[in-house]
Amino acid sequence: MSAGTHKTVKTAVAGVSGYAGGELARLLLAHPGLQGQTPLFLGRMGAASAEKTLLSDLHPQLSASALTSEIEVIPFDWAMLKQQGVEILYLATPHEQAREWAPQALANGIRVIDLSAAWRLQQDSNRAIYKLEDADSALAAKLQKEAVYGCPELHRAEIASARLVANPGCYATTIILALAPLLKARLVDLSFDIICDAKSGVSGAGKAPTAKTHFMYGADNLSLYAVFNHRHRGELLEQLGLQPEQIQFTPHLLPIPRGILATIYVRLKNKSTAADLQAVFDKFYAESPMVRVRRSPALPQIAHIVRTNFCDIGFELGPDGKRLIVVSCLDNLLKGAAGQAVQNMNLMCGFNESEGLL
Amino acid sequence: MSAGTHKTVKTAVAGVSGYAGGELARLLLAHPGLQGQTPLFLGRMGAASAEKTLLSDLHPQLSASALTSEIEVIPFDWAMLKQQGVEILYLATPHEQAREWAPQALANGIRVIDLSAAWRLQQDSNRAIYKLEDADSALAAKLQKEAVYGCPELHRAEIASARLVANPGCYATTIILALAPLLKARLVDLSFDIICDAKSGVSGAGKAPTAKTHFMYGADNLSLYAVFNHRHRGELLEQLGLQPEQIQFTPHLLPIPRGILATIYVRLKNKSTAADLQAVFDKFYAESPMVRVRRSPALPQIAHIVRTNFCDIGFELGPDGKRLIVVSCLDNLLKGAAGQAVQNMNLMCGFNESEGLL
Amino acid sequence: MSAGTHKTVKTAVAGVSGYAGGELARLLLAHPGLQGQTPLFLGRMGAASAEKTLLSDLHPQLSASALTSEIEVIPFDWAMLKQQGVEILYLATPHEQAREWAPQALANGIRVIDLSAAWRLQQDSNRAIYKLEDADSALAAKLQKEAVYGCPELHRAEIASARLVANPGCYATTIILALAPLLKARLVDLSFDIICDAKSGVSGAGKAPTAKTHFMYGADNLSLYAVFNHRHRGELLEQLGLQPEQIQFTPHLLPIPRGILATIYVRLKNKSTAADLQAVFDKFYAESPMVRVRRSPALPQIAHIVRTNFCDIGFELGPDGKRLIVVSCLDNLLKGAAGQAVQNMNLMCGFNESEGLL
Amino acid sequence: MSAGTHKTVKTAVAGVSGYAGGELARLLLAHPGLQGQTPLFLGRMGAASAEKTLLSDLHPQLSASALTSEIEVIPFDWAMLKQQGVEILYLATPHEQAREWAPQALANGIRVIDLSAAWRLQQDSNRAIYKLEDADSALAAKLQKEAVYGCPELHRAEIASARLVANPGCYATTIILALAPLLKARLVDLSFDIICDAKSGVSGAGKAPTAKTHFMYGADNLSLYAVFNHRHRGELLEQLGLQPEQIQFTPHLLPIPRGILATIYVRLKNKSTAADLQAVFDKFYAESPMVRVRRSPALPQIAHIVRTNFCDIGFELGPDGKRLIVVSCLDNLLKGAAGQAVQNMNLMCGFNESEGLL
Repeated sequence: MSAGTHKTVKTAVAGVSGYAGGELARLLLAHPGLQGQTPLFLGRMGAASAEKTLLSDLHPQLSASALTSEIEVIPFDWAMLKQQGVEILYLATPHEQAREWAPQALANGIRVIDLSAAWRLQQDSNRAIYKLEDADSALAAKLQKEAVYGCPELHRAEIASARLVANPGCYATTIILALAPLLKARLVDLSFDIICDAKSGVSGAGKAPTAKTHFMYGADNLSLYAVFNHRHRGELLEQLGLQPEQIQFTPHLLPIPRGILATIYVRLKNKSTAADLQAVFDKFYAESPMVRVRRSPALPQIAHIVRTNFCDIGFELGPDGKRLIVVSCLDNLLKGAAGQAVQNMNLMCGFNESEGLL
Repeated sequence: MSAGTHKTVKTAVAGVSGYAGGELARLLLAHPGLQGQTPLFLGRMGAASAEKTLLSDLHPQLSASALTSEIEVIPFDWAMLKQQGVEILYLATPHEQAREWAPQALANGIRVIDLSAAWRLQQDSNRAIYKLEDADSALAAKLQKEAVYGCPELHRAEIASARLVANPGCYATTIILALAPLLKARLVDLSFDIICDAKSGVSGAGKAPTAKTHFMYGADNLSLYAVFNHRHRGELLEQLGLQPEQIQFTPHLLPIPRGILATIYVRLKNKSTAADLQAVFDKFYAESPMVRVRRSPALPQIAHIVRTNFCDIGFELGPDGKRLIVVSCLDNLLKGAAGQAVQNMNLMCGFNESEGLL
Repeated sequence: MSAGTHKTVKTAVAGVSGYAGGELARLLLAHPGLQGQTPLFLGRMGAASAEKTLLSDLHPQLSASALTSEIEVIPFDWAMLKQQGVEILYLATPHEQAREWAPQALANGIRVIDLSAAWRLQQDSNRAIYKLEDADSALAAKLQKEAVYGCPELHRAEIASARLVANPGCYATTIILALAPLLKARLVDLSFDIICDAKSGVSGAGKAPTAKTHFMYGADNLSLYAVFNHRHRGELLEQLGLQPEQIQFTPHLLPIPRGILATIYVRLKNKSTAADLQAVFDKFYAESPMVRVRRSPALPQIAHIVRTNFCDIGFELGPDGKRLIVVSCLDNLLKGAAGQAVQNMNLMCGFNESEGLL
Repeated sequence: MSAGTHKTVKTAVAGVSGYAGGELARLLLAHPGLQGQTPLFLGRMGAASAEKTLLSDLHPQLSASALTSEIEVIPFDWAMLKQQGVEILYLATPHEQAREWAPQALANGIRVIDLSAAWRLQQDSNRAIYKLEDADSALAAKLQKEAVYGCPELHRAEIASARLVANPGCYATTIILALAPLLKARLVDLSFDIICDAKSGVSGAGKAPTAKTHFMYGADNLSLYAVFNHRHRGELLEQLGLQPEQIQFTPHLLPIPRGILATIYVRLKNKSTAADLQAVFDKFYAESPMVRVRRSPALPQIAHIVRTNFCDIGFELGPDGKRLIVVSCLDNLLKGAAGQAVQNMNLMCGFNESEGLL
């Protein structure tokens, strides 16, 4: 669909105050397919009208010039969303909130793209870490089955027709995109652990000021966290079809604002060549506008993907032809959150998959 | 001009290997007004065709996915430019090169936007610091008079019809935009120096590896340089109509990749109020899409403008109503270089001034 | 006093949990003059013994190896301090606490080095910004007069015999040391404002996690704060003998952990030379081990002083011989806090002024 | 040996201009055991006396105050070294130079601590990567056998009496100290690769300005380099007694000035407990003042060791009791270079092992 002939889609964003919310606002306001349909940015439900908040109060980088208008954050209200004809509701809220609101949105005929973890996991055991308690668990269970994991490179068709898209976690996206081509091609010797040594910038820890998001903690430092039990682990297992003992995932906190790089150690079943592996990745991503496969031995690095929606993937094969290092890199706020959400909207609404993302 | 009805403009960029060149490439490739007219990226004149270089070799962040094509850097060649119908040539080259090539471009009927300092200064004394020696000084002197200083907020109309636009320096843009409204309104008591304490990220120092661009020099550091004699000084004097003794400008090197912030100390002739000054700035920039005037006492900061083409300006007035601090902020690679160059192209070619820049 | 023949001094530190407290602990534990007299590190008054805290819980960088012992933080208790023979009590507490405890320490015969602002200011008007309310204001007023401003370069002799030393603010130290030599020599034309454009690392904002100490706020950013009304202003006025309208002081937040650099714009009464000014600074600091005067035009930079107790001072004189830029640089946690406190202890206890600080 | 009764040792440093050289100078100048014996800092051999260089020209942070003297860098000259009674010569030079000079030093009766890689590797195959060509290979081979690998925690006794100490590589030290306790105790199942995902600050890349040490390359970035073939690999194999296929080592470049963290993935032969492993590490380092073993599950981080000579080691054991992550952290310029060199000197000269390093 070209920029000149697009239909209009009415969107709304709940939870615009965080980092992902801010990036989502930026992307939607500049999206060629939404021109003339300014997204609604939603604050607290029942917020008094007296508490007028501007989008630029939350994200000063989105301030207007004299030639444009400041955008207001309006109170969340289902009736208003329906009346305004909202078709797509983004939830960039805590997962408890998203677990509650998604069914209500669908009941109001509004499709949902949920950036939280609320609907990503099909197995109760994997979801347990989020302590999600459903008011109406029968409905939730039904919706859970319907929810589509919003990784376009794996589930493009299902996303297009989905009512409820569960936008993947940032670490999960990074690692899934690196491993899916190899695992689908059954190249990996799973008697050796897949080891994912992953490193993320501080924005991944969210906007709340804490001891660990303090500048003095992060700056000039590197530290590990959530060793053996990071919450994104369940997504890896479900999407890659792995057993818990087949994959290790170790997150590190990098002293940078944004970007994730995962260094992934894989043992291949059979001796391979760089050319063969290159072909595997190239073929897998031949139709994917938002993945860039590097020519081995060139490897991705964070500087190449920051502030883009690309996931860059590269690899280097050891001299034995079996020890393989795959490197995967993305911007945790874009391809790992807001950008991927827009990519999902593009599929759901019939835009080009990369519309507004290049 | 809307995105749907734009005419096409053929552009070329000489000097694409540097930081400003890379940003220029990124902007032009995504510019809605140039779709279908991929810009030409030019390498060395007479470069052997064997030395094929891709744009992504120079700037890996501009790599293609499987659905797009890698872009080649082609040898500089006047005949080819003419044959391809190039209308606008960007020069992101050293100033000596730009001093030589701009006349040749005009002779070939190609309009020039020069990002170097070659044509910015009308007075020989100010230009002396660049040691520009003209092969044909009569022609150069004539062209110099014709060159328009590419600050759209000051010279919008002249830029629209210019053949040769001298894109301003990054520090100069920051300071000129902060002071022009006050000086034009004759509010400043010039018996007190205007003091411009300016701070810039490391990209302003260019891509060449030197002792001062080494990570270990810049990181966790702050230092001064070019005290009393920075090269952008002449632009301040000419554009603001000041005498050398009326303004001090002190550059500092910040431990960040990009962004400039200038803290400017001004004494007003008469006791004033924040509201009056706000009105002065608002009025001056009422038609300027790329300047954002903050509501005092809110002040700009680098995080708000990085990777945008905005110049943010704010101020705080002292309790005496005469001591004024103006703060001005921009991204040195965008509003301070490549973005402003595109803004100038927009004016020259009849696009919206902010086309491709929001 | 050589390392081999020192007397012993018993010290204690209240408020060891903050950044300055951590640096103080590090310095005291390695101080040659205190060997065999491990300082006491004090927690909350009346803290239950059950809540055993180690110094390394607060500052993991101070952990012990197998050959040393972990140091415990013990509950604050006047009787215990007296019994242990504590001679010097450091207060690295909030200023309200220090205003209350200093008199009690003196009453117990313990000399005090107070790192807070509680006792720095002689004039009520300057102290007002701290909202200090004295339970016993007559006593406080008397003690206030006795308190010595702990800037060794200005008050070496008084500090040596003081019972209560008010350790200066970090910005104040930076600026006072830069200006004192010029003002004492009556070289400055005070009809022009002295403009102090000062920049500090994030540790100056303290350990409490806030929106402004969040990594994402500080990183890659530069911003102003407390324009026209920073709390250290009073110290400048009192110590330099200036009127409010004679000096401007503008703080900026640098994206680095530690270090302050002040760029100070001064107008001289009479045309001067770099050699003359060099002599003025050299003479003023001829007996000062912790100030390094640079040879003009070399200027200090933050990297040269970080993690040292030096204040580096340099200057550059303008071509007119009257416009002078003085640059002053120190580590806000050392010469701006904990290091200067130890320097004061050295004077109070008869150690070499730089003992344990080189 | 206490600070009060030390003998004097005369030292000299060749190659003081680099980062490790600068740290070495700082440590030696403050070393309690060397007081009254200012080290000699050596420049180029045969440098004209006219080219007088101060140590503070190379490292401005080492400038003198008015109460101390600037230290001169003097031309390298064997006769002078001998005449001055130099007992210990540090070589912080390129490895080719160290390969040439070490034999000459020994011939002059001077013991050598070599910070380069020249003498670290006993096997020709491992040394091949350095392309060391020996003028007199018989002598070199003999000296090679005599050279002691300067890791005090492994070779304390041999170092004490060594004439030629080969100071280990920074990455090598980090990884060897993490793995030696486990391997010596034969706990590791070597049918699974030991995977060492290591991350280093930019100072590890040296002082030469290159594309990869440019601030713009390092800042906000993370990248891999020397995958499968980093030069420190040989040290791991020789010191840990491993075969090449038993260990993977992948270096990353962190956007920080200094510090290394290695995340090491180990499979144990038998199911173990955290308590058992803690005991293994504790016992191994019971006599080591410069290694700090963390209490699991606390893990080291770079901020805890930067600017110290400690190597911090911690671990976390997976729920299966066999998958083990060991984390090791040190400052590449101190425990990874200059600090370890001083630690070796302390052993060689009979000082306390941690003298001047705490």
